[in-house]
Amino acid sequence: MPRTSSRTARSGIVTLLTDFGEEDAYVASMKGVVLAAARGATLVDLCHAIPPQDVRRAAMVLDGAVGHVPPGTVHLAVVDPGVGTSRRGIAVDAGRALFVGPDNGLFSLALRRFGTYRAHALPTPPGASATFHGRDVFAPSAARLCRGEEARRLGPEVKDLVVLDAPAPRRAAGRVEGEVVYVDRFGNLITNIHGDLLPVERGACRVRVGGRLRIEGISPTYGAAAAGRMVALVESTGHLEIAVRDGSAARRLRAGTGTPVVVESDR
Amino acid sequence: MPRTSSRTARSGIVTLLTDFGEEDAYVASMKGVVLAAARGATLVDLCHAIPPQDVRRAAMVLDGAVGHVPPGTVHLAVVDPGVGTSRRGIAVDAGRALFVGPDNGLFSLALRRFGTYRAHALPTPPGASATFHGRDVFAPSAARLCRGEEARRLGPEVKDLVVLDAPAPRRAAGRVEGEVVYVDRFGNLITNIHGDLLPVERGACRVRVGGRLRIEGISPTYGAAAAGRMVALVESTGHLEIAVRDGSAARRLRAGTGTPVVVESDR
Amino acid sequence: MPRTSSRTARSGIVTLLTDFGEEDAYVASMKGVVLAAARGATLVDLCHAIPPQDVRRAAMVLDGAVGHVPPGTVHLAVVDPGVGTSRRGIAVDAGRALFVGPDNGLFSLALRRFGTYRAHALPTPPGASATFHGRDVFAPSAARLCRGEEARRLGPEVKDLVVLDAPAPRRAAGRVEGEVVYVDRFGNLITNIHGDLLPVERGACRVRVGGRLRIEGISPTYGAAAAGRMVALVESTGHLEIAVRDGSAARRLRAGTGTPVVVESDR
Repeated sequence: MPRTSSRTARSGIVTLLTDFGEEDAYVASMKGVVLAAARGATLVDLCHAIPPQDVRRAAMVLDGAVGHVPPGTVHLAVVDPGVGTSRRGIAVDAGRALFVGPDNGLFSLALRRFGTYRAHALPTPPGASATFHGRDVFAPSAARLCRGEEARRLGPEVKDLVVLDAPAPRRAAGRVEGEVVYVDRFGNLITNIHGDLLPVERGACRVRVGGRLRIEGISPTYGAAAAGRMVALVESTGHLEIAVRDGSAARRLRAGTGTPVVVESDR
Repeated sequence: MPRTSSRTARSGIVTLLTDFGEEDAYVASMKGVVLAAARGATLVDLCHAIPPQDVRRAAMVLDGAVGHVPPGTVHLAVVDPGVGTSRRGIAVDAGRALFVGPDNGLFSLALRRFGTYRAHALPTPPGASATFHGRDVFAPSAARLCRGEEARRLGPEVKDLVVLDAPAPRRAAGRVEGEVVYVDRFGNLITNIHGDLLPVERGACRVRVGGRLRIEGISPTYGAAAAGRMVALVESTGHLEIAVRDGSAARRLRAGTGTPVVVESDR
Repeated sequence: MPRTSSRTARSGIVTLLTDFGEEDAYVASMKGVVLAAARGATLVDLCHAIPPQDVRRAAMVLDGAVGHVPPGTVHLAVVDPGVGTSRRGIAVDAGRALFVGPDNGLFSLALRRFGTYRAHALPTPPGASATFHGRDVFAPSAARLCRGEEARRLGPEVKDLVVLDAPAPRRAAGRVEGEVVYVDRFGNLITNIHGDLLPVERGACRVRVGGRLRIEGISPTYGAAAAGRMVALVESTGHLEIAVRDGSAARRLRAGTGTPVVVESDR
């Protein structure tokens, strides 16, 4: 008997996330393969500007987007330094969302959002290029899922997916210690400190970045700061963010992924 | 009684214009929200490479594209330095086109193309992120317009939209004085001097850029110049452009937005 | 009587390939024109990051993608340094695929894949911009083909299309001499040496790049090399590629388009 997870009607949407950039035809080849096998599919580019082989950043981008697409959408993600080795290809049915790509942790952050899921190993068809499973293994599988096929039809169930270790914030008396985990295009520093961990009295806390006191209080919006001023706020995925109004916090503070961020309060 | 403007059938197309770049998932989140609420919508990216918070450039890009999309298209544009402040969000029905985004002048250049329009203020729903109205306010509103809802259903009518001041060319005896208002990817310098202002005898005029005589005569095409030579012509939106055949006029002339351009003729 | 080539049902897909970049609205204007004339067309971006006016690179990107899209797809390609000169605009029906754009060699590499084809010269409609035939000539023609019109309805048949000269590898006793013809985003060096030309005993050959011995043996996959090591393999379009595992071969070897590559074997 199928679990609930396999009953979600498919949306007809396939999202694409790669590190292929925009200057070659690799993404287009994948799109062509999906459209040839699933006519009428709606393709949505999540992002193709992931730095080459940066699986962690890709996993974070996917995690940030997955909650905002229609249920039954297939996420085709290919950041795949291990292509052609023994790393597995997988199709994952998490009910509201489905995922296709290499089993290297790419989906592990997004999958935390779902209660249960089932993963299936994808066989490599004869004649598949050893360097481009995105086109020859993953795109055809995504098309099959998009058309409504069940993931279990694609290959045997597998367990023990690769999981990225995600740095967890630490709580202590009067403080939360975390770090920057993502820097966006605007130079905003997004941390692993979820808004739920912040002191209730947000005006009465202090934010240290890289060990130095930088900001007094957490603001509701960018607009609360004057142009060029630093501000701490809760960003659109629910985490503490350090920003500079109309500027780049990354550049101003010479901060990046891994920079420690501490929030202190008096109680 | 509805005005003519609200009777245009919707095309099912939503264009997207932002300064979000291609490296994060912000654009994809907006697309997901539109598709979830307007299944089958056709999404067309206008441009996401607007320099951060450059409302004026975004307004010009929108103005250049708006005439070439099917009637009844919804333009969802988010270049929004004031997100989370008291700046209004608006939906504008201009008949042939509809616009959704912040009221900061973003639509003011494109709206000059339309005789009449009506603007409506968008309420911020409870739970909307204070930093990402593109996803939580504007994308849902664009989806509603795309499905055929009338703009007046989205919020109360408002007047006095923010308007960008656009530098106007000056005419004097035997000369037109304007300036560069846009530099494109090729380094072409696009001015605010419309072709209608140019002398009828186009071979007999002189073009000064940044105060120096640069080009004799206005050519019909790039091809009229030898490779590497400067040329003045009327570009595809109808304005005077300074170009270098197979090169960059911006680099050659060290010119950019605001550089004065003067066309002189003998009569 | 129509040839076989004109009987392929159209897929409803139009691909777009330009050197227009992502920062202006030129691509969006073309998309708007296509969608206005062919409602419901599916648009797929092949690539818009072709270096300005690099017809050869565009021809290679198109060649690499054309085999992976559904039959009956229209390829709208505009890398057009000669716009506004006497260079012809063409529509080409090659049966499984159709092409629209300038006759400057852009399609000549892809067309080698098709047995026969017919090309038709596109008239320039009155009022077309002299600088943007992509929007005013090619996009409307692509829309007509997408809707199912025959190419011969678009203009008179023409012969002698412009053909790019493509460097051919040379074979001699125990060696194949070729060159790098494409460098992708990852810095992989893709050569003009097809896998069919390589020695059967792939482990027993040597690969010289730029005159220096660099790699012993041709590997099945990237994964066969340790991180940071050079590897030669057959890439996803079937050609010999020089790569650095988790790195850039172009940077490591200071190699690029035109760098000689020689494969030697003992028999």
